[in-house]
Amino acid sequence: MLSGKEVAKHNSRDSCWIIVHGHVYDVTEFLDDHPGGSKIILKYAGKDATEEYDPIHPPDAITTNLPPEKHLGPVEPDTVERVEVEVTDEEKARLARIAARPPLSTILNLHDFEAIARQVMADKAWAYYSSAADDEITNRENHAAYHRIWFRPRVLRDVTEVDFATTILGHKSSMPIYITATALGKLGHPDGELNLTRAAGKHGVIQMIPTLASCSFDDIVDAALPGQVQFFQLYVNKDRKITKRIVQHAEKRGIKGLFITVDAPQLGRREKDMRMKFDAEDPSEVTQAGSEGVDRSQGAARAISSFIDPGLNWDDLKWFKSITTMPLILKGVQCWEDALEAYDRGLAGVVLSNHGGRQLDFARSGIEVLVEVVDKLKEKRGLTFPHEKFQLFCDGGVRRATDVLKAIALGATAVGIGRPFLYAYSAYGPEGMDRALEILHSEFEMNMRLLGAPTIKHVVPSMVDTSNIHTHIVAVPTDKLYDLNYESLQHAMLKEVKSKL
Amino acid sequence: MLSGKEVAKHNSRDSCWIIVHGHVYDVTEFLDDHPGGSKIILKYAGKDATEEYDPIHPPDAITTNLPPEKHLGPVEPDTVERVEVEVTDEEKARLARIAARPPLSTILNLHDFEAIARQVMADKAWAYYSSAADDEITNRENHAAYHRIWFRPRVLRDVTEVDFATTILGHKSSMPIYITATALGKLGHPDGELNLTRAAGKHGVIQMIPTLASCSFDDIVDAALPGQVQFFQLYVNKDRKITKRIVQHAEKRGIKGLFITVDAPQLGRREKDMRMKFDAEDPSEVTQAGSEGVDRSQGAARAISSFIDPGLNWDDLKWFKSITTMPLILKGVQCWEDALEAYDRGLAGVVLSNHGGRQLDFARSGIEVLVEVVDKLKEKRGLTFPHEKFQLFCDGGVRRATDVLKAIALGATAVGIGRPFLYAYSAYGPEGMDRALEILHSEFEMNMRLLGAPTIKHVVPSMVDTSNIHTHIVAVPTDKLYDLNYESLQHAMLKEVKSKL
Amino acid sequence: MLSGKEVAKHNSRDSCWIIVHGHVYDVTEFLDDHPGGSKIILKYAGKDATEEYDPIHPPDAITTNLPPEKHLGPVEPDTVERVEVEVTDEEKARLARIAARPPLSTILNLHDFEAIARQVMADKAWAYYSSAADDEITNRENHAAYHRIWFRPRVLRDVTEVDFATTILGHKSSMPIYITATALGKLGHPDGELNLTRAAGKHGVIQMIPTLASCSFDDIVDAALPGQVQFFQLYVNKDRKITKRIVQHAEKRGIKGLFITVDAPQLGRREKDMRMKFDAEDPSEVTQAGSEGVDRSQGAARAISSFIDPGLNWDDLKWFKSITTMPLILKGVQCWEDALEAYDRGLAGVVLSNHGGRQLDFARSGIEVLVEVVDKLKEKRGLTFPHEKFQLFCDGGVRRATDVLKAIALGATAVGIGRPFLYAYSAYGPEGMDRALEILHSEFEMNMRLLGAPTIKHVVPSMVDTSNIHTHIVAVPTDKLYDLNYESLQHAMLKEVKSKL
Amino acid sequence: MLSGKEVAKHNSRDSCWIIVHGHVYDVTEFLDDHPGGSKIILKYAGKDATEEYDPIHPPDAITTNLPPEKHLGPVEPDTVERVEVEVTDEEKARLARIAARPPLSTILNLHDFEAIARQVMADKAWAYYSSAADDEITNRENHAAYHRIWFRPRVLRDVTEVDFATTILGHKSSMPIYITATALGKLGHPDGELNLTRAAGKHGVIQMIPTLASCSFDDIVDAALPGQVQFFQLYVNKDRKITKRIVQHAEKRGIKGLFITVDAPQLGRREKDMRMKFDAEDPSEVTQAGSEGVDRSQGAARAISSFIDPGLNWDDLKWFKSITTMPLILKGVQCWEDALEAYDRGLAGVVLSNHGGRQLDFARSGIEVLVEVVDKLKEKRGLTFPHEKFQLFCDGGVRRATDVLKAIALGATAVGIGRPFLYAYSAYGPEGMDRALEILHSEFEMNMRLLGAPTIKHVVPSMVDTSNIHTHIVAVPTDKLYDLNYESLQHAMLKEVKSKL
Repeated sequence: MLSGKEVAKHNSRDSCWIIVHGHVYDVTEFLDDHPGGSKIILKYAGKDATEEYDPIHPPDAITTNLPPEKHLGPVEPDTVERVEVEVTDEEKARLARIAARPPLSTILNLHDFEAIARQVMADKAWAYYSSAADDEITNRENHAAYHRIWFRPRVLRDVTEVDFATTILGHKSSMPIYITATALGKLGHPDGELNLTRAAGKHGVIQMIPTLASCSFDDIVDAALPGQVQFFQLYVNKDRKITKRIVQHAEKRGIKGLFITVDAPQLGRREKDMRMKFDAEDPSEVTQAGSEGVDRSQGAARAISSFIDPGLNWDDLKWFKSITTMPLILKGVQCWEDALEAYDRGLAGVVLSNHGGRQLDFARSGIEVLVEVVDKLKEKRGLTFPHEKFQLFCDGGVRRATDVLKAIALGATAVGIGRPFLYAYSAYGPEGMDRALEILHSEFEMNMRLLGAPTIKHVVPSMVDTSNIHTHIVAVPTDKLYDLNYESLQHAMLKEVKSKL
Repeated sequence: MLSGKEVAKHNSRDSCWIIVHGHVYDVTEFLDDHPGGSKIILKYAGKDATEEYDPIHPPDAITTNLPPEKHLGPVEPDTVERVEVEVTDEEKARLARIAARPPLSTILNLHDFEAIARQVMADKAWAYYSSAADDEITNRENHAAYHRIWFRPRVLRDVTEVDFATTILGHKSSMPIYITATALGKLGHPDGELNLTRAAGKHGVIQMIPTLASCSFDDIVDAALPGQVQFFQLYVNKDRKITKRIVQHAEKRGIKGLFITVDAPQLGRREKDMRMKFDAEDPSEVTQAGSEGVDRSQGAARAISSFIDPGLNWDDLKWFKSITTMPLILKGVQCWEDALEAYDRGLAGVVLSNHGGRQLDFARSGIEVLVEVVDKLKEKRGLTFPHEKFQLFCDGGVRRATDVLKAIALGATAVGIGRPFLYAYSAYGPEGMDRALEILHSEFEMNMRLLGAPTIKHVVPSMVDTSNIHTHIVAVPTDKLYDLNYESLQHAMLKEVKSKL
Repeated sequence: MLSGKEVAKHNSRDSCWIIVHGHVYDVTEFLDDHPGGSKIILKYAGKDATEEYDPIHPPDAITTNLPPEKHLGPVEPDTVERVEVEVTDEEKARLARIAARPPLSTILNLHDFEAIARQVMADKAWAYYSSAADDEITNRENHAAYHRIWFRPRVLRDVTEVDFATTILGHKSSMPIYITATALGKLGHPDGELNLTRAAGKHGVIQMIPTLASCSFDDIVDAALPGQVQFFQLYVNKDRKITKRIVQHAEKRGIKGLFITVDAPQLGRREKDMRMKFDAEDPSEVTQAGSEGVDRSQGAARAISSFIDPGLNWDDLKWFKSITTMPLILKGVQCWEDALEAYDRGLAGVVLSNHGGRQLDFARSGIEVLVEVVDKLKEKRGLTFPHEKFQLFCDGGVRRATDVLKAIALGATAVGIGRPFLYAYSAYGPEGMDRALEILHSEFEMNMRLLGAPTIKHVVPSMVDTSNIHTHIVAVPTDKLYDLNYESLQHAMLKEVKSKL
Repeated sequence: MLSGKEVAKHNSRDSCWIIVHGHVYDVTEFLDDHPGGSKIILKYAGKDATEEYDPIHPPDAITTNLPPEKHLGPVEPDTVERVEVEVTDEEKARLARIAARPPLSTILNLHDFEAIARQVMADKAWAYYSSAADDEITNRENHAAYHRIWFRPRVLRDVTEVDFATTILGHKSSMPIYITATALGKLGHPDGELNLTRAAGKHGVIQMIPTLASCSFDDIVDAALPGQVQFFQLYVNKDRKITKRIVQHAEKRGIKGLFITVDAPQLGRREKDMRMKFDAEDPSEVTQAGSEGVDRSQGAARAISSFIDPGLNWDDLKWFKSITTMPLILKGVQCWEDALEAYDRGLAGVVLSNHGGRQLDFARSGIEVLVEVVDKLKEKRGLTFPHEKFQLFCDGGVRRATDVLKAIALGATAVGIGRPFLYAYSAYGPEGMDRALEILHSEFEMNMRLLGAPTIKHVVPSMVDTSNIHTHIVAVPTDKLYDLNYESLQHAMLKEVKSKL
């Protein structure tokens, strides 16, 4: 066992050792390949880097990226010097904002969590969670598309009792939603994805475990209550042996559905996130790096995802069926043609999704694609939805139970929610997750009553008007000169005293 | 008879008596159940709470919520100590704004009342009147929808005399509008709903009396002029005996139409109103309450409406016919299917309404639903509108006589106006109501002339273009980077001297 | 002949004489009927009021409103005391702005005149010219509608010479526009409408003389060059004898077309203008007046227009034909049905107009109605446009030659322009008018070249795409909470130094 | 050879000599004809004006505009006095901004170049590059139109390798773009168009050389690598002999395609640019000039373009075929009718373009016209695109590789990019161009993967939804009074401490 003192000697570019989770690693040769730059590693050269490492790497990132001979073994815990982290003024201001969070009971909706999270999260964490591809058009369209769907509620139906429980792939869910997979959960809270697992168990909803979790898969499964259903989201590795091991391990641990991500042959460029990386670096080094071809600007997520296989294709699906009996669902289908293909190949369903707007900008929203898929699968195969054997899901942009109910009315089995839950626990920890699910519960109850729907089965297509769902308009550019000249109308004004407005 | 001195002893959480309208009540056990929190009651423990109680409770709220044994009987008036109300700086600023109201003759339209009311009303009152459900999309859509309807005026018609009187359910109205039911009228002015009654009588329009008035039903009826027509809006009680008593009393008092609210099996979440409640409370208490399950965040209206029966359904309508001969109208119908059902069941009409946007967000506007209902009832039953036997009404979002004329052209018998009248009397008392009705009168005269319509019968469908009424579009999210880079055109500039703009 | 000294004695509410254009009038009994209030008259009691009177009254306003016995005859010029006008700080600032006008050569388009006029005109004058009905929706729509029409230009046509001269009612015009009738021209410049007459003569365009000119009809006709064509806009008087006299006088003076206004049975409420009146008055007096029933809030234009006959109708047209041989055109037609009626009754044309948005709000733009009229008159009567015997005009919202060319392509014979010319001479006097017409000339030349149209006849329907002309959309109300939470993308930033942006 | 001393004597309006590129010119008589005004020339009277002259004139401007007798021959270099340029405060601030440019590696997209260029370019240069016609509606529409096209990506296709190379007129291009012709390249950087030539060579894309380059044609051709393909953009001269010489010289120098500009019979009015000219002049002189008829307000580009023949027409195309064997492409076609004509006349293709919004405002975007052209040429001639024999190009508004991919999917062979490259080298010189092309390269790779398209041929029409491409909407004018009254929702707020937002 190595001593902290010994490790502390290797504190330079020439010999750089770091400690992560009690083990020592020689990263000297890895310095220039580190996606986050060498500077951040050198800061911890000879020291314990666990606290910095944890939130932005999956647990096994270091072991899989470093060759075994660089794994130098455990360190004697008591001998390790603590790293003094200097608290910047910005960090102090952030801590003050954390202390000033309003009471949780004043959080009235999912937007509120986001407003608080944006102020209390570290900038990098906020940037990673909130960022999306290119001009973030699709990211915002995901939410906006719901606003093109309007309700046609029914009256005079007995809604004394309303029941919004449903089943997803045959498993009970207390609401027609599930917690979708999102990466790097520890960025927002030290317990990371476990916050989601625990809340899911408590409130009877299903969590989809991400491949790029910052907690280990087994820890997440272990945190589930007895009988708690979990799904698994899979990025397929170029090395199918690894994928096979992961899938079969998941099945063995009781995972009830395998959601294979198909919209990310390469992880997207997210410029907000990329700009954040630069801020964290020594600018001169970044500039050089840029010209040397080691492009650090792509961000951690991009780097840790280099294993994803862009060669994955329809022919691979047979192989998946040969290695697992879990239901297979494609996550990231974006047109009816591919949904039809998935159906014809006997899959259990598709998630109509654009990856939260983080992949291809100008991809359409899941809710819009849902309308197209339902229409065409009825036309081509006579299917009606929701359908037990081939289930449709969508995700992206949800902020209100009414959003979910629109998707349900249109034929979705359930809707995935991601960022709002990250914001909930990033802002308020596990209580935030509780509150978030309570709010949704309360909104479902209220809005199903107001829709005139005592159960989920009563939420039907005729309850929504989707005639504008496919309308993607941009107004004619404004006439700046005309608008500058136009003098706005004013209403009656108070005399003299200061207006309140 | 109790003395004020005796009452004053019960001024703590252990024994808490209050005086309301000269009667003493023991509210000790009720403290924790009070929807507005215990704090506000304890402020008046042992004292006269009438002034605080009045505007935010229907007159019988305390008697119906407290068991009879807690009604301790009258107090000797002269012995009651006056509560010194501390005038806060905010309240002083508000009083200064009241003093600075512009002369009533400078109020040119209904918007002006709202602008003044917003500044001179107490914050809580403004929040209660102005708030709406969830993201207030429907609330604003109610107004916006009128802007998608354009006129096709006719020229060269003799409009020397224009007459916009009409009949509603067989009763004369000087204009094609009525004053619709709204709750808690005293929040804006001490005379509450009586302001509406008196103005209605004077100007020959019909008032719909609300179940949740802050004046008593009988006071409102008593305030009517001889022959003045009134309607009644009904929330149906879980206890039908109470409803029967109310309905039959209304009929006995001469009410000419019963408008049964069907869009509120549960009263909506109105977050502006809810945030206001928190401000009024001790935050720590609110937090605790939140976790104790007594949810004070729902606001007074929600609490006082817990009697409303979410089980009300079509089968109940027979019973209504058995207990009253008043014409029955459903208030809150939102699609043609339910309007057709109402017609087939022999009702006298429907109000196409979404409750001022205060119930289901993304419900469509009444004016939009009107177009659908007129089309479908013609197609399915051969009806044309306006129709004597089955009358269509709508409400929500009206600010101009032109809004009303659009609805009339499309087949409505009359249009309900709510908030603008509340703002009129909240800003200027009874004279405000007079002015509001004069303004509408003047706008009707002007605009019927300009439409080429000498009477209401001449206001016909071909006078409006509704081709975009069902268009619910949201522009593609803006390209922030492009827009940031675009340098706006500038027109010619003055040399050196300060621009006036 | 009265002496100034004698007049000066009558300087009170009890006996109030004023001098206008060298004549004395006893207005004592008229004080309370003056639409602009008594205060402004009393300021000039016993004095010469000409300078104040001139810009806001037609020349004969005082003689027609006062009974003959109140016309006290001429005053000896030299004996009249000059009124000292106190120059307010606001007026000083305005004079400074006038001095700071940029050189006329920097005025590049019609918008520029408006920008300067808004700053150098008196507030009242600006308010009168710029104001429109109700919420000014139609006023702005008039301009916006042109932005829904896009060009389909042709290339590789010889456009060495482009000729945009045309004929209007058989009379030559150097451009396909005319100067439309607008009231109270002296508000912007002491020469009033004569600025228009002179520029029209110089640049070969036709002026339409307004009934409510502030110069006298004869002065305007006298100012024309030999052979200069003028039209006349007519408000029809309740007293047809007066109208007959006016029309026959116009014909005698050589007017070539009679444009009968049909969209103003009552002059519109223009709230910007109305608010301005209040500012000019003693507020307490205004309040009283409001309650006394003499409604001063309606503005001068409304008052001076009380003679207009709201009873005018189609049957009156025969009578017009009996009193004049001038071509008759209806100004203010707003749907195809009325255009067809005008055609069937043998009129010479119609102006598709909503009176600059000053009458019925939510009336459609002239350019939009043009599309409908052309379609329907082709369908119903086989007409194609432009048509020699039945000419279509439109006005409202024009700021660029491209706007005009769109109307021409769609079948209009010519387009009326009003406010931009008022702003041109209000900002720069007669040189402003010259520059305005030169700018249009230059824009016509440029844009016809770019359209590939060597003459007006080559400007044809296939050169415009009008598929969205009838689209009146309002976006779904914004999601305020979502938008507040969205963090805008930022582009690359300069390091440290102050950004120029 | 003249001495600098001799030249220096001719330093007044009476005798004004200047030195440009080592030659002396007598411009005394030219002073008043100079489009940029005499003042700027007089500043250099008797001195070397090369530095001022270079960026805003094509190299041969002075020799072609001055008669030969005014060419006074070379000057002895060492005898010329250097002109001391006074550095203004504004210029100092600009130089500080240049020094503060962020490192090139932080430039993430083409927008970023524009943001930096706007701050570091001279105001005149920015105005010239960025300005567009009239209200710049078309200029912005060019970009906005791409936002009305959405993707329908395919999943589960092997995109391990993606190849976006293509051929343009038979010549290889590493990406489906080309560098389109833009004038006055030295305004942004002393090397002018050579920056484009060099980057094009290095990155394997094709440059279209402009007629109005500020480097000479031969210099640009000489700067090409062996085998590097270049196209030439042609403004046709009224004097066809000159055009013939230019065209045949181009062919001789190896130009592979002749793009004849057909959308500019007259160069457009660009008001931003025009306002900039005034700022640079003595205002009084400009005013006078304005009234003298020498209109200096039109800007340099307009002036140097007076040779362009507005008489160019379809019949001229035969002549072009007679003088060159280069493929002929029309640049600036804007409707299907003209594209069809070009096809029928045997041309090699058309560029669907509106000249970057710098010519006819309200011309539609190239991408919109592309949809129309593809539809109609299929209907009329059975063509499908991309088509080897008749190639379609478009340009204008491109900022992202996704924009280009939309055009490719719709049938374009390649897309022209102009301003973004000017901004790239204006901000960062040749490295800027490298970075710009690298960014595009990276975006193409990413987005073709995400589209599921391994090669350009896989980018097909069904991958885009263009249903709204022809929608040109303008929202109904806003209801100012309603909006002023509406109180925005607020989300949960931090207690007391300063919000970060």
